[in-house]
Amino acid sequence: MSLGEPLEIKKVLVANRGEIAVRVFRTCRDLGIKTVALYSDADRDALHVKLADESYYLGPPEPLKSYLDVEKIISVAKRARVDAIHPGYGFLSQNPVFAERIIEEGFVWIGPDPETMRLVGDKLGARRLFSGKGIPVVPGTLEPVNDRDAVSIAEEIGFPVIVKPAGGGGGIGMFVATSPEKLDEYLKRAVELAKSSFGKYEVYIEKYFPLSKHIEVQIIGDKNGHILHLHERECSVQRRYQKVIEEAPSPSLDPQEKEKILKTALEAAKVAKYTNAGTFEFLFDTQSRGFFLLEVNSRIQVEHPVTELITGLDIVELQLRVASGESLSLKQEEIVVRGHAIEARIYAEDPSAGFVPSPGKIEHLSLPSGPWIRVDNGIYEGYEVPPYYDPLLMKVVSFGLTRGQAIARLRRGLSELKISGIKHNKFLVLRVLEDQRFLDASYTTRLLEDQKFYENLQNEDPLPPIPGKSRTETVEERKEPKTKVEKEKVNLWRVASRVRYES
Amino acid sequence: MSLGEPLEIKKVLVANRGEIAVRVFRTCRDLGIKTVALYSDADRDALHVKLADESYYLGPPEPLKSYLDVEKIISVAKRARVDAIHPGYGFLSQNPVFAERIIEEGFVWIGPDPETMRLVGDKLGARRLFSGKGIPVVPGTLEPVNDRDAVSIAEEIGFPVIVKPAGGGGGIGMFVATSPEKLDEYLKRAVELAKSSFGKYEVYIEKYFPLSKHIEVQIIGDKNGHILHLHERECSVQRRYQKVIEEAPSPSLDPQEKEKILKTALEAAKVAKYTNAGTFEFLFDTQSRGFFLLEVNSRIQVEHPVTELITGLDIVELQLRVASGESLSLKQEEIVVRGHAIEARIYAEDPSAGFVPSPGKIEHLSLPSGPWIRVDNGIYEGYEVPPYYDPLLMKVVSFGLTRGQAIARLRRGLSELKISGIKHNKFLVLRVLEDQRFLDASYTTRLLEDQKFYENLQNEDPLPPIPGKSRTETVEERKEPKTKVEKEKVNLWRVASRVRYES
Repeated sequence: MSLGEPLEIKKVLVANRGEIAVRVFRTCRDLGIKTVALYSDADRDALHVKLADESYYLGPPEPLKSYLDVEKIISVAKRARVDAIHPGYGFLSQNPVFAERIIEEGFVWIGPDPETMRLVGDKLGARRLFSGKGIPVVPGTLEPVNDRDAVSIAEEIGFPVIVKPAGGGGGIGMFVATSPEKLDEYLKRAVELAKSSFGKYEVYIEKYFPLSKHIEVQIIGDKNGHILHLHERECSVQRRYQKVIEEAPSPSLDPQEKEKILKTALEAAKVAKYTNAGTFEFLFDTQSRGFFLLEVNSRIQVEHPVTELITGLDIVELQLRVASGESLSLKQEEIVVRGHAIEARIYAEDPSAGFVPSPGKIEHLSLPSGPWIRVDNGIYEGYEVPPYYDPLLMKVVSFGLTRGQAIARLRRGLSELKISGIKHNKFLVLRVLEDQRFLDASYTTRLLEDQKFYENLQNEDPLPPIPGKSRTETVEERKEPKTKVEKEKVNLWRVASRVRYES
Repeated sequence: MSLGEPLEIKKVLVANRGEIAVRVFRTCRDLGIKTVALYSDADRDALHVKLADESYYLGPPEPLKSYLDVEKIISVAKRARVDAIHPGYGFLSQNPVFAERIIEEGFVWIGPDPETMRLVGDKLGARRLFSGKGIPVVPGTLEPVNDRDAVSIAEEIGFPVIVKPAGGGGGIGMFVATSPEKLDEYLKRAVELAKSSFGKYEVYIEKYFPLSKHIEVQIIGDKNGHILHLHERECSVQRRYQKVIEEAPSPSLDPQEKEKILKTALEAAKVAKYTNAGTFEFLFDTQSRGFFLLEVNSRIQVEHPVTELITGLDIVELQLRVASGESLSLKQEEIVVRGHAIEARIYAEDPSAGFVPSPGKIEHLSLPSGPWIRVDNGIYEGYEVPPYYDPLLMKVVSFGLTRGQAIARLRRGLSELKISGIKHNKFLVLRVLEDQRFLDASYTTRLLEDQKFYENLQNEDPLPPIPGKSRTETVEERKEPKTKVEKEKVNLWRVASRVRYES
């Protein structure tokens, strides 16, 4: 692959919205590729629409009537005469029917082969496929379970166990059972939720590891069977199975363990005949120091920037090149890690109220900038965050030669970030970045269950002071704010310009 | 040097303003160091003041009464009980008297030894010092010249020659003479300008190379005589001896030439017993492919970010560590170049009107963000750019594994940058980034003399459309704007969301 060469693909439609659509457009622009955005009624003023060369209306805000409507999207692609379609993450990105329809209509699908997608998308099917080829999967069932088998299987692999919907994702319908009684109860609830959420009632059982970490390997493969890994990421800071902080490389593995996981991921990718970008996710048990393949995500991940920062490679560019038929001329040994990168996902949500989403108008926005900080952003000041979609607002990512540098710089970046008008999780992330368990990397995926993180947690930035209003303030005056509004202003000044001395 | 370890220095005053003060504060914050800002009457609302922990009033806007007032700054440093003082670039950064006073008062001076500063700051003295040690300097005089000697010397080294003030900088009082008559005239004018601008009337003569490039080497030295280079930068895109676009590494040198310049810079740094960060600037003659030491800048450079992006090293952090007495434990071979970085300086000036500064209120500001773009910024929306200081607003810097990637990404970053309310040079930079001579690196320092760059050059971004106003616009309506205001709005939409199709 000759980086920087012109591509066959000249015009790309991104079948997505928000920060990931913006992200894909940016690399398209770098490569001289025209960009096409889609928008629902809720997204007329969205940033991804503003940054595209062309934008097309899809329909009402509800995803089923817009971003999940396969035929509507295909018809826009035809109208816009695009060459290729990038699905982003979420929405239709892992839907093999969507991929097949795109290919059928003669467009380039920027993703893996639909057959591979189908194979790895069926969680139980994937467990059967990989375990049959000697890839370690989490101990548990390879077929759907019913109430009768469940308890005996659970006793065989040992409690606690986790019940999972076969067709699901995002943590929905997942329950940890510590006893046969609990298992009975959870199975019923899981089946109900699986049916209502994913339309498939099958559930299965896996052994539950209470002290585990989430490690994943970024894979890229071309259409000639050449598969490379871009090293690993660790994403163990999660709230309800949703990642919040991700980093690369993992601070938890010794060199042998790292080598072994990378090798296993490559083997699994070969088993799945993997093409384009994908992520092989592993559960790492900190007690036995064993690891198991959890699932395969057949799309770009939210957390791909940390891998980009330590390898120098642009994963969206690799996706475009591979999709257009180019061969990967990179060699595995040329993909070298430099330094450490950490990403914080900033959500419109209230962490102190069970992470309930907090849509609404962004009254004020100050983005961090400067050395070692990257912001992948989907909002702007004055923008109204709609209630219909994933509440991810942006990702703030830092780089350092050492993990310590990356942590310090991410803290600084977040301290410069100001979002007012809605509630958000910045202060929770800052607490994690100061927690000793995070600093020494001894934490597990259950870190955020610690209720300490939510005690007196700030969940919004106050509005900034009115410009010019604080001109003659002295530090003495500011010490005793009188009204609530004044208090807020002073508070912001403390964060921004903390103390000011007039001569 | 153990990167990431706590430092002796706990509180730093930055004797500067604008983007470089912001830049230094950010690394201080990363290292847990408290920050102190200074401000004149013109800078009460400046960004560097907002981002500091404490800020102190200096005096009236005029530099001599504020940022150049050594004793005022020392007295603030005492009042604020800082440990160390960082001078940034410009203002007092290369003033050995300032450095000496700081050291005398018991503060840490974040810069080279004052004796070294004095040595390299005297341009003729430096020429004598280095040429005496076998370092190639530009052919010319080693002593001030008078009218009588000048012509015979010029004839000896050969016309054209350049007349330079011995005590000057920034291109002031510099003239290129192509004949004895012109030389006579320019000598008189140079002496006058030297006296009025720098208070020293001495001038000297150097051979003028009409087809040259500007190559410079970043040096860092500790107090134990350990000196390293951080590779070279090329800064050949200049307007009136002021750099506009800088990159690292240089695209103009072959590996042997690069090696030779780096070695020469290290030798020169050893001759000067150089400590802390400094830049050894070379003239590279594209015809003979010879190079000559031009001058030494005993401070951090505006363009240091490009070096940071290709080495992963934070130059401000290195400055702080070395100043606090730490030894450089880095080895030369550990400082490895990855990729390519390019910086564009964005000035408040009108390139199509002779680069006249354009102070005023920033009515609207959209900063670029996302992958591979770094912005070192000194302004914000609503900020009033004062007329008293250097009109540099910010630096937009890109990274790529290849130069082509870095160029494409810088173009994208600049296309996302919108500054309205004042005139600026973004469109000039974009023209250079599309010029074939820049793309193939065949250009010289005289590139911007080409008047083509200024023909029908846009010099400001229009105000963005009023939010919500364009909601029901269709592409057909937008094709025929009626009023001038409408035209501007449409223009911005073309840049932002170019074409929008309602179903």
